[in-house]
Amino acid sequence: MIAVTTIAALREVLAPTRGGRIGVVPTMGNLHEGHLDLVRAARAECDTVVMTIFVNPTQFEDAADLERYPRTVEHDLALAEANGVDVVFLPGVEEMYPDGFATTVSVDGAITEVLEGAVRGRAHFDGVATVVAKLLLAVLADVAYFGAKDAQQVVVVTRMVADLGIPTRIAVVPTARDADGLALSSRNARLTAEERARALAVPRALAAIADASTRERDAAALLAIGRATLAGLDVEYLEIVDPDALTTLTTLEGAALVVVAVRVGATRLIDNVTIPRRSDP
Amino acid sequence: MIAVTTIAALREVLAPTRGGRIGVVPTMGNLHEGHLDLVRAARAECDTVVMTIFVNPTQFEDAADLERYPRTVEHDLALAEANGVDVVFLPGVEEMYPDGFATTVSVDGAITEVLEGAVRGRAHFDGVATVVAKLLLAVLADVAYFGAKDAQQVVVVTRMVADLGIPTRIAVVPTARDADGLALSSRNARLTAEERARALAVPRALAAIADASTRERDAAALLAIGRATLAGLDVEYLEIVDPDALTTLTTLEGAALVVVAVRVGATRLIDNVTIPRRSDP
Repeated sequence: MIAVTTIAALREVLAPTRGGRIGVVPTMGNLHEGHLDLVRAARAECDTVVMTIFVNPTQFEDAADLERYPRTVEHDLALAEANGVDVVFLPGVEEMYPDGFATTVSVDGAITEVLEGAVRGRAHFDGVATVVAKLLLAVLADVAYFGAKDAQQVVVVTRMVADLGIPTRIAVVPTARDADGLALSSRNARLTAEERARALAVPRALAAIADASTRERDAAALLAIGRATLAGLDVEYLEIVDPDALTTLTTLEGAALVVVAVRVGATRLIDNVTIPRRSDP
Repeated sequence: MIAVTTIAALREVLAPTRGGRIGVVPTMGNLHEGHLDLVRAARAECDTVVMTIFVNPTQFEDAADLERYPRTVEHDLALAEANGVDVVFLPGVEEMYPDGFATTVSVDGAITEVLEGAVRGRAHFDGVATVVAKLLLAVLADVAYFGAKDAQQVVVVTRMVADLGIPTRIAVVPTARDADGLALSSRNARLTAEERARALAVPRALAAIADASTRERDAAALLAIGRATLAGLDVEYLEIVDPDALTTLTTLEGAALVVVAVRVGATRLIDNVTIPRRSDP
């Protein structure tokens, strides 16, 4: 495995591999099985697997959250190598945002205004779109692998990549979960045992809604089921939205996305589940 | 010469040429010798020369100006072919901005706020940066050729390309001028003979400033010389700025850029000249 810290070195390392298929897994490090699922998906489909590790300051609206974000580079490099990553791109902030950096990639409209956009503010998705554009252009992979847990991020990145014509396909990998159902997240490490037990209401609420959706197609009724399961948690949002437009649904007709964000103690957790069309298997 | 109208077709046509050097000349059509200078520069350095022709609606702040913008596609294709263009990319508005398009590339700060940004409004350079990003990503050329006449556009595009890491070098080709000194522009065709005679004050003012700069390094004194030459014209701006930061200079120390915008009748004209450092040859 080769680790590089500059875009120039990354391009040099990748140049001889361009005859084959290149896959990239963008991460903020602190790798867990969710990231490794992305690596395994890339490994299964690509000749060369690139991982990027960059804790992007511009997508943190809260300086304390950025400060607290776990950085475990040696652990990450060992896991990446053990799981078949060929090249790790580990840029510093000065490589990504050198002096005089002045460009922002913005995705306008509902998909960045609702849910995470409403809670975290508009700058969050500007930060995401800009850094992902720059990382994808640095790698110029054939496929980029993103986790389904960050559902809105996937929608925004997919829109940005299509709009600008970045020549990389976005592949979405199902959310990895612990045995108890909690979606894997670097933030889970901050939960106390008691908080973690309470956090399990999140996957239970999603499962209850998904389960009820086979007989109940009214969004308000489904949300009431979910809210009952989440009782006692600090719920930032629980919504049933169109999986592409992220607009609120009142009745489930096509596919639907159930999205939830909660705070458990000092830790913010998000999760989601997709409900297939009624006629889907 | 091959003409294509979709990004998919463009990529297919270019795929077999990627072993060699690709140059791209982005234009809004209505080709004149200025554009052909760009083609000749590309032809001299590249194996494959691509021209894009797209009148980008999002960079026109004035619907009437967009409407009036001359469209001469058959003339353009004939000139492109005669001058050695290999591939012309002629997208429609729906190809560049399909339904649901929501992404904007913005360059913040002084370089987009002053001069053209101040006169035409912020949306102008958002439109330029977004369309140029999309065109450069569609072609993925080694080199893109821009004319020095649109000096601020060159600064903004160069910044955007560096910031996002678009893997295309920006080459700047000197402004082409008619024998009388007027910078070539598609808009010149709208000038009456009388207006054209008056417009010649623009290159004369720039030449007078450049000439005086060999003995006078005070910007205010140089601008006074220029303004005297422009007397009677509707001057939108005449400034001496840093060539990279576009900040106003009071004394010429390093290189300087003299920029001017005027309205002659209904036609808006811009021009510029670079003054080298005192020690430059």
